[in-house]
Amino acid sequence: MRIAIDAMGGDYAPEAVVQGTLDAAGVIEAELALVGDLAKIEACLPKRDRPESLEIHHASQVVEMDDSPVVAVRQKKDSSLVVAAQMVKSGQADALVTVGNTGAAGAVSRLMWGAIPNIDRPAIATVIPTYRGSTVLIDSGASVDCSAKHLLDFALMGQIYASQVIGIENPRVALLNIGEEETKGNTLTKEAFTLMKSYMGDDFYGNVEGKHLFEGLVDVVVCDGFVGNVLLKSGEGVAEMMMRLLKEELTAHPLMKAPLALLRPAFKRFRARLDWREYGGAPLLGVKGVCIIGHGRSDAYAVRQAIMVAAQAVAGQLVPTIHQSVQLLHQTEAKRA
Amino acid sequence: MRIAIDAMGGDYAPEAVVQGTLDAAGVIEAELALVGDLAKIEACLPKRDRPESLEIHHASQVVEMDDSPVVAVRQKKDSSLVVAAQMVKSGQADALVTVGNTGAAGAVSRLMWGAIPNIDRPAIATVIPTYRGSTVLIDSGASVDCSAKHLLDFALMGQIYASQVIGIENPRVALLNIGEEETKGNTLTKEAFTLMKSYMGDDFYGNVEGKHLFEGLVDVVVCDGFVGNVLLKSGEGVAEMMMRLLKEELTAHPLMKAPLALLRPAFKRFRARLDWREYGGAPLLGVKGVCIIGHGRSDAYAVRQAIMVAAQAVAGQLVPTIHQSVQLLHQTEAKRA
Repeated sequence: MRIAIDAMGGDYAPEAVVQGTLDAAGVIEAELALVGDLAKIEACLPKRDRPESLEIHHASQVVEMDDSPVVAVRQKKDSSLVVAAQMVKSGQADALVTVGNTGAAGAVSRLMWGAIPNIDRPAIATVIPTYRGSTVLIDSGASVDCSAKHLLDFALMGQIYASQVIGIENPRVALLNIGEEETKGNTLTKEAFTLMKSYMGDDFYGNVEGKHLFEGLVDVVVCDGFVGNVLLKSGEGVAEMMMRLLKEELTAHPLMKAPLALLRPAFKRFRARLDWREYGGAPLLGVKGVCIIGHGRSDAYAVRQAIMVAAQAVAGQLVPTIHQSVQLLHQTEAKRA
Repeated sequence: MRIAIDAMGGDYAPEAVVQGTLDAAGVIEAELALVGDLAKIEACLPKRDRPESLEIHHASQVVEMDDSPVVAVRQKKDSSLVVAAQMVKSGQADALVTVGNTGAAGAVSRLMWGAIPNIDRPAIATVIPTYRGSTVLIDSGASVDCSAKHLLDFALMGQIYASQVIGIENPRVALLNIGEEETKGNTLTKEAFTLMKSYMGDDFYGNVEGKHLFEGLVDVVVCDGFVGNVLLKSGEGVAEMMMRLLKEELTAHPLMKAPLALLRPAFKRFRARLDWREYGGAPLLGVKGVCIIGHGRSDAYAVRQAIMVAAQAVAGQLVPTIHQSVQLLHQTEAKRA
């Protein structure tokens, strides 16, 4: 197995990406190919005792965070992102990992690898922390205008991701909605409810509200990419606001220093339970290849985890399994019609 | 001024509603009409020294939290909600306050009072806590399938609510989106951006992401009711999850009891800054009357605040101002066309 890593993407590239790759090299059995500016990557690597599984592939350009996807695909053919995607296309690598420009990563893998037949829209499956552990949110931002059929595809892909990569047996898949009853929602979710119930049977849990999502009652939550992205970012916003307010109040008076110091381990455990880096990367599902996209703010640990997700996705046969399941669904549909 | 209060709505009715009304009676100059089961309301009131501004109007039925809006309107004509709305319609009262069934309250006021001309969809304007204070989210759940024109109406109504009721001069109005650039978003938000820019000029701040919303950079945030409801409930979910995790970690060991006690005032201030009850009620905008809807979990303080919001809405001429502004917009549109 070989994983191509875009060394130049993200806010802390290439240092964090290279360090995360070194850390991953120590724990997984896969060739790791760092793609990007040779000199800059070299500068981040130790002079000796480099892991044998590490390779460097030079690429002269960089896709910036604010480049449009079109620019990335058309004008930056020798960028670290495009070169890494090309390695997957040609069979030189089994997966692409990037913590750079999300839109560009989506466009590059869709255009260069193509879509899985009968999947009209790709979706990003993001693991979010909940009270009981974590839940997969799909789509968290790849496809912003969706039909009910697209949401059904997302549900299937999310279910396969949860079972094949995260290792959840019989994942419970729910539809994100504004009420629990079947009759609640907008036109899209009402149609999607009917479709999911009809095709997924008992695997479909029903509707779940935003509030209950964070209780961790279900394993996969399905929504369109606009709603998912709003949910993800506003959740981040609420968490950040609370942390700031809490910090302000707890540091408002010097007398609180001593008791606060005694509670530090508890605060540390609290933060650890909210850590989004555990699954440092989210797969773009629906394309013919493994593409793991991480947060632009990823540090070395998040990059390491994104590489682990990529390795699990390859080992878990994520793409072929999605391919097969969707063809099965399509045949069932054709028979019904 | 007279405010009709649905005494039977909400999880803690009628006790919390009656107590909140008593508390409000001490601070505002308005007649307060409690509508509901006479005997039950009487049982919650003190035997003597009742405020002179307090009245009771008997209603024999109750709209339950899980009644469909249709049931409320058609089959519960002598319910506290419908009787209170009838008082507004007949001119006996100037505003309706309820902390009961939101869907029923919306349906009852729309059907009994009618919509403001040229407003095709009503919207709920909810005040949410942010790092810098608070922001109005509109629509937080009344209209789940919207066009760009509807979002423009919401923007105008939200702007008027923020200035006339909350007292913000020149409120900054933003569109909730998944990126800040004009080109970002789904079909709906792209169209809405163009429309809002064209009609609102400098009053329009542009796009705001869910993450930045909680920094409190803008005064009014516009979205469709599905997205707004998901944002509101998932934000509540994140906050609740964090509170639970924090509590679990901070109470995991008896040795933490003493330092925790010393920090109690700071934790109290932290919670106060997140208190949603300050604006205990959200107006349903776009109907011909003042309808303030509170959270089903409202306690006496939240009910008191909802009544204050109603009084401010009446005093601030909320409904006539919306009426005028929308007619102006409509004339401008007609001239352009």
